[in-house]
Formats: sequence, structure tokens, C-alpha cells
Amino acid sequence: MLEIADHPFGNPTFTGRRWPLADVRVLAPILPSKVVAVGRNYAAHAQEFGNEVPKEPMIFLKPSTSVIGPNVAIKRPRASSQVDFEGELAVVIGQPVRNVPAARAGAAILGYTVGNDVSARDLQRSDGQWGRAKGFDTFCPLGPWIETSLDASDLALRSEVDGEVKQDARTSALVHKIPELVEFVSGVMTLLPGDVILTGTPEGVGPVENGQQVSITIEGIGTLTNPVQDA
Amino acid sequence: MLEIADHPFGNPTFTGRRWPLADVRVLAPILPSKVVAVGRNYAAHAQEFGNEVPKEPMIFLKPSTSVIGPNVAIKRPRASSQVDFEGELAVVIGQPVRNVPAARAGAAILGYTVGNDVSARDLQRSDGQWGRAKGFDTFCPLGPWIETSLDASDLALRSEVDGEVKQDARTSALVHKIPELVEFVSGVMTLLPGDVILTGTPEGVGPVENGQQVSITIEGIGTLTNPVQDA
Repeated sequence: MLEIADHPFGNPTFTGRRWPLADVRVLAPILPSKVVAVGRNYAAHAQEFGNEVPKEPMIFLKPSTSVIGPNVAIKRPRASSQVDFEGELAVVIGQPVRNVPAARAGAAILGYTVGNDVSARDLQRSDGQWGRAKGFDTFCPLGPWIETSLDASDLALRSEVDGEVKQDARTSALVHKIPELVEFVSGVMTLLPGDVILTGTPEGVGPVENGQQVSITIEGIGTLTNPVQDA
Repeated sequence: MLEIADHPFGNPTFTGRRWPLADVRVLAPILPSKVVAVGRNYAAHAQEFGNEVPKEPMIFLKPSTSVIGPNVAIKRPRASSQVDFEGELAVVIGQPVRNVPAARAGAAILGYTVGNDVSARDLQRSDGQWGRAKGFDTFCPLGPWIETSLDASDLALRSEVDGEVKQDARTSALVHKIPELVEFVSGVMTLLPGDVILTGTPEGVGPVENGQQVSITIEGIGTLTNPVQDA
């Protein structure tokens, strides 16, 4: 690990100090002012819940207080009896932007990390709006770091629970592609440095239980692992 | 206006300087890390759209980038053909809290201001999730200031468009009361100083057009006025 002097935007400066990865605790790579998540953006996942893929991206927000880093426990709230993982490619915004055309989306993006759009599936169904079901503390693991030099258009995404593969897809299957998502979301709301767009989850989502461990790996980025605990 | 030295939490210090209200531009009284809004929390408003009052509060999020202060224009986005005002009592949180029992909610609250949960009604219907419809820039006017000494349990709330009264209700008609909302929301997510809970809107919501002006007055707080412009 190379120690960064201030923040990762622009041309970051490094202190010159290096640390062995085994000796550090990696935090969430960014504390976003907002996390904008996209629903039903892989056709096979929309189908697994009997939903259509929306013509335009369907967006919802996760609070910044739901963000945790690698190896921090996802807490299953007592209010829910089914907490699901959802592995996702996370886009990290690099500068304040509004109304970015898809063709210029790349310049708005700092890089990519791995996200887990943890969801209390029972509350998601009963509440209608997803503010509670997807907004609990610890429900937005991000990490392990932001990869800034990457073509994210066709990456393998794999989610495992206790080593068993549950999701195995490619980002090329995204219905609304990354440039379109940046255009759409920035056409609604100003995006700030560090804001995150969760691009949607592929098929294979499912519950996690107390004591299990969920790992999401995206090709070219890395693996985001979190244990699961009852609150 | 008395000039505050740093921030309004705890026991704020004042610089000793005073300004005539007419000589200052009042900004949004707080830049919240999150705005948690409550849907269908007045029975007569739920009814006007044919909805039931949810047994538990139905919460959704508005992004911090949607916040504007008094007299700043609400911009009607081109993507929508119906933008509605929704006058609401806004609770401003005073300290970091989690799992606050209703009986101790008062200690978590800094004070109250007036909020307008501006909504693109057509997109709210078509999208299902309300992240877009309620998340546009300028869709969360707050102000004119935070009233810190107030019993908010039975205040008159009145919304006017170009001087015509559209909403005329009392906060005593809130289905889920303020202490219950603080308990519920803080049981889901950590609330941080400055975070805002919009408590829901009463009956009488309706569209605003380019060139109109919407004013929301809450007894004991003040009036939040915003012009409306096409984007």
C-alpha cells in the first residue's frame, strides 16, 4: 500500500511511505455524499423476481451511513427475516458534474470499486419504497479499493457465500450501460466527487445468515469480503 | 440576524455582529448528509391518491444535492410534465444517534424548519421507486431557519401558490408522530447532526408552473417561499 497524502481526486500526492497489505486495515475507499443505486439492470435478475427491465434506469438512494469497508460485518437487523447480498459494479464519480452526455461520461468517473447492495428482502416487498430495506447501517459494503485504469464494459462479476458461487455474470450484460447511467443520473441530480453509482446486480442473489461470509469479486478490481452477523 | 461563529450544534457561539434581515440572503439553514422523507403520513393526503396509511412509516431518501434555501428557484425538469409542491414540517437532528427510543427523541432533535418535498408526480408514478421523481436538484427547499424552542406536536401548516391557500392542516394530524419517526428512522440508520426528517405532507398537494411562487408557513417557525421556473 502506498500512503496517499490527501484525497484521491485529481492527481493525488503520495507521502512516500509504503505498508505491507497484511499490516493495514483497508477502509471503504470513499465516503460518498450519496449512493445512487440502479434497480433491475440485468435482465436475468429482473426475471428472477418476475419483473420487467425498466425502459429508463430505475434509481433509488442508499444513505452514506450504510457504507462499510471490507471485512466489516454486515448486520442483519432484527426487523428483517431475509437479508440478501447483491454483488454490483460501483462507479465512483471524480468531479462535480451535472448533465453529462454519455459520450463524455468517462471524464466524470474516477474509477470503479466493488459494491454490495445489501437488501432486507421482506421489508423491500412490504414497504413498497426501498428506503428502509436498503438503508440499514452496514448495508453498503464498498471496496477493497478504487481501480482508476479499467475498461469496465465487460468484466466478470462473481459472488460467493462461504465459498459457494451464487452470482457469475459479466458487466456486458448491464441493460443500461455505464455511460448511459452517468448521463441519466447526472441529468437528475448533481454528482459530487466520491459519489457512487451502483450499477445493478445480476441474477443469483440470495440470503445470508449469521456467521456466513459473502465475497464479491470483479475482474480487474478485486474481492470485497464481509462477514454477516445478527444485530 | 445574529452572526454565528461556527455551527449551530451544541451551544453555538455568536460573533457579536448583527445584520438587518433585509440585507442578507438566507441560505438553507443546514446542509444535511441525508434527508429522510416519510410517505403517506397524513390520512387525508394518503386518501387523495387512493392510498392506505402504512402501518409503519414508509421512508425514502432525498439527496443532499436537492436542498435549496428560501427564494431560490425550484426548477421544473424537462423530463416531467407535473411538478407538485408538498409542504412539510422538517425535523433537524442535533447529534449522532442510533436506536433512539421515542421517549428520548427530543434530545436528538436540534429544532424544526419548513420543508417542501417537491415531487415530479408523473415520474413518481411511472418509476415505482421515487429516487428520480423526488431527487432532482432544487427539489428540497428548506428554511427559512431552524426554530430550536418549539413544541411541534400541534402547529398550523399552510401552503400557498401565488397567495392561494392549497394546504391548511395541523401537525397534530401526523399519523406517525415525531418521536415515533425519530425512533423508527434511527432504528434503521445512524442519524448525523444536520440530518433532516421530512415528516410527510397533508392533503392539498398540487402542481406548480413556471413563474408561480410557492410559500409554506408553519406556525412558530416561519414561511419558506420559492419561485418556480422551467429548467
